[in-house]
Amino acid sequence: MKKIGIAILGLGVVGGGTYKILTEHRQKYIGDHGIDIIVESVLEVQRERALALGVEEGRIASNISEICSNPEVDIVIETIGGVEPAKSYVLAALNAGKSVVTSNKELYCKYGHELEKAAKHNHAGLFYEATCVGGVPIIRSLLDNLQGNKITSLIGIINGTTNYILTKMSDGGKSYGEVLKEAQSLGYAEADPTADVEGYDAAYKLSILSSICFNKKIPYTNIYREGITNIAAVDIAYGKKLGYVIKLLAIGKESKKGVEVRVHPAFVRASHPLASVNDSYNAVYITGDSVGDVMFYGRGAGALPTGSAIVGDVIYCATHTQHRYSTFNNTATASPDTKFVTNFESAYYLRFLAADKAGELSKITSVLGKYGISVAKVVQDNEDGGKEDVNLILVTHPTRESNVKKAVASINKDLADTNVEAVIRVI
Amino acid sequence: MKKIGIAILGLGVVGGGTYKILTEHRQKYIGDHGIDIIVESVLEVQRERALALGVEEGRIASNISEICSNPEVDIVIETIGGVEPAKSYVLAALNAGKSVVTSNKELYCKYGHELEKAAKHNHAGLFYEATCVGGVPIIRSLLDNLQGNKITSLIGIINGTTNYILTKMSDGGKSYGEVLKEAQSLGYAEADPTADVEGYDAAYKLSILSSICFNKKIPYTNIYREGITNIAAVDIAYGKKLGYVIKLLAIGKESKKGVEVRVHPAFVRASHPLASVNDSYNAVYITGDSVGDVMFYGRGAGALPTGSAIVGDVIYCATHTQHRYSTFNNTATASPDTKFVTNFESAYYLRFLAADKAGELSKITSVLGKYGISVAKVVQDNEDGGKEDVNLILVTHPTRESNVKKAVASINKDLADTNVEAVIRVI
Repeated sequence: MKKIGIAILGLGVVGGGTYKILTEHRQKYIGDHGIDIIVESVLEVQRERALALGVEEGRIASNISEICSNPEVDIVIETIGGVEPAKSYVLAALNAGKSVVTSNKELYCKYGHELEKAAKHNHAGLFYEATCVGGVPIIRSLLDNLQGNKITSLIGIINGTTNYILTKMSDGGKSYGEVLKEAQSLGYAEADPTADVEGYDAAYKLSILSSICFNKKIPYTNIYREGITNIAAVDIAYGKKLGYVIKLLAIGKESKKGVEVRVHPAFVRASHPLASVNDSYNAVYITGDSVGDVMFYGRGAGALPTGSAIVGDVIYCATHTQHRYSTFNNTATASPDTKFVTNFESAYYLRFLAADKAGELSKITSVLGKYGISVAKVVQDNEDGGKEDVNLILVTHPTRESNVKKAVASINKDLADTNVEAVIRVI
Repeated sequence: MKKIGIAILGLGVVGGGTYKILTEHRQKYIGDHGIDIIVESVLEVQRERALALGVEEGRIASNISEICSNPEVDIVIETIGGVEPAKSYVLAALNAGKSVVTSNKELYCKYGHELEKAAKHNHAGLFYEATCVGGVPIIRSLLDNLQGNKITSLIGIINGTTNYILTKMSDGGKSYGEVLKEAQSLGYAEADPTADVEGYDAAYKLSILSSICFNKKIPYTNIYREGITNIAAVDIAYGKKLGYVIKLLAIGKESKKGVEVRVHPAFVRASHPLASVNDSYNAVYITGDSVGDVMFYGRGAGALPTGSAIVGDVIYCATHTQHRYSTFNNTATASPDTKFVTNFESAYYLRFLAADKAGELSKITSVLGKYGISVAKVVQDNEDGGKEDVNLILVTHPTRESNVKKAVASINKDLADTNVEAVIRVI
């Protein structure tokens, strides 16, 4: 029987969940895979956390060196999160010849090239399935199943917090602020929600996923990013009438023109498989030239789902003698010759607050026309009557981003009785 | 640069698609994976098929021995389908030390234990991702990503032909016979549709997938199987009113009671992610104790999607020096000590044709009650008036299959004015 010794760095939500899975399933893994996986050591500054999980006192390490020099430890699991001290610890482990399994998207996104280099140099394994979309098997599916495809597009709902918030806003008609507070009290959003609601978390994951899809390094700094804080309940309601649902999307595309990577809220047609991905569920919708459309759906976060991905990597690492390394994640910056498309093409939902008088609509469409934007749908909402200003909604045919920006600026400046209230992409 | 020589056995739809992907992407694979994949040889009785694809005359082999003795061939792709001659050819290739990639579900389902044995004996690789759900990465996800989970349930829509037929019946209100004819003329159904519409194809795939999920051999002969030929348009319409859609499901479950494996049509609640899997799309919905619910969705058949899975296996095989073998697929019969649950528990949709007179409903529910079946919903349809008999629909709470059978027999026998017209499970 092969014995595999594990050290876990960080026993927070994910580290704790991983510890539970590994200890509770020990006999199963002996039976199913013929390997005895033992948690030899943990590193956790809050010792009481470790003790509460049932870790024996003697297995709580005082520092990373203790783990690196422990000959019983084969694989180090890093679930600390953030860049430091996680980065130094992971590098120390790799340099000590330990294989590393990490769930740390920020670390792998920002310093994956350094980690890959150290892993390769030390003939150690480096696994990061848990960095993206929790327990949903997306990274290894891209690397080991879809790798014969030319991937042309990935569209993901890859942040659980924002999907939870947007779903609740859609269900209940509440404002962003109200739902955020509820989400925070339920533990679905952090006290400081910036990383989630401003799209950083999604951008880290999109960097990792699109790099694999397009087989070139796509740094997160090249990703256009726009959060959900400006999404208004009224637009969600109008969207619903038009047959759309609002989602924070991470989009990666590659065509002859180049690579296009962006994170922003968007209206999705209700018939699209991504439209019914609700609450804290995540999904990634991928299009390849051979496979066509495939979608991966499941829980994108949480102790046990993310733990599932980590344990999957641990067993994979334990049952494979040969390690492979990224062929593209070797620089901090974009792979040479990578062209980025930044003037995106998209259909747009535009909401105007306009004086309720004859001719406003025609003035608006005339400005849009000047910038080559043609209109696919119009909704004028003056059901309430009486009010001076009415909501006027236009959905455009696909057009370039730059045209929309210019048209919006022109309308705000030149049409005294009309204001652009909302600009939301439609996919 | 590593050179990998390929032979393809059978250049039908899937073999032809695979040939196209491999030849058109040759430069891409050199760039992305550092391997030069060359189709060295093909075996195809209809030589004109091979020539039409652009295979050089000299690369068309006359028999399997030519391929087995060709030192340039490293990997043999089998896309012939059926048991013979595919089985003899695959065994010959494995015994010649070639690795094999197959899309042949019937062969791997029925004789996988023999193939695994030959592969292991000859230190050759054996890959079968393409046997299930086309290009959707389900097998390797189960083996390499979700393998740390105790999988409790898999529910799949894993036959494209039947899903196409049921979707069209649902959309247009047409009968099974009408839609089958259309599907045949469009090439979505075979001239002899038995393997698809009677659930054999789904049972082969369920045998393969549930064996991996539960880490024990589940022969297809242990799978309960019921096709879609008796599904009536009227029941699809009533189901729709109740918020259900009809699907041919492949279900595998494992609990303390044992393993439960079955293929049958069922009503799925419209809110379930599987409900929106339409046309020839497939999906597998898996529940694991750590990962929770995950769903894999995509094209379950077709030249290029299935080719994508085959090419994924080819590249995987070419980039891994170490081969792994099934730990459970070593017998033709079920793994020892496997208990099968056959008296399933399910909710049921029951349609009765009953005389439109007072007391019939009460008589029916009284018989159901006698067998411990309680009713969750009742729909009585006498909108048409005038007619003597009316459709009476009951949806039961979950109950044992044996109770339903007894109750149905009793109603047909004892209630002179009532006939049981349809019995459909609801999940």
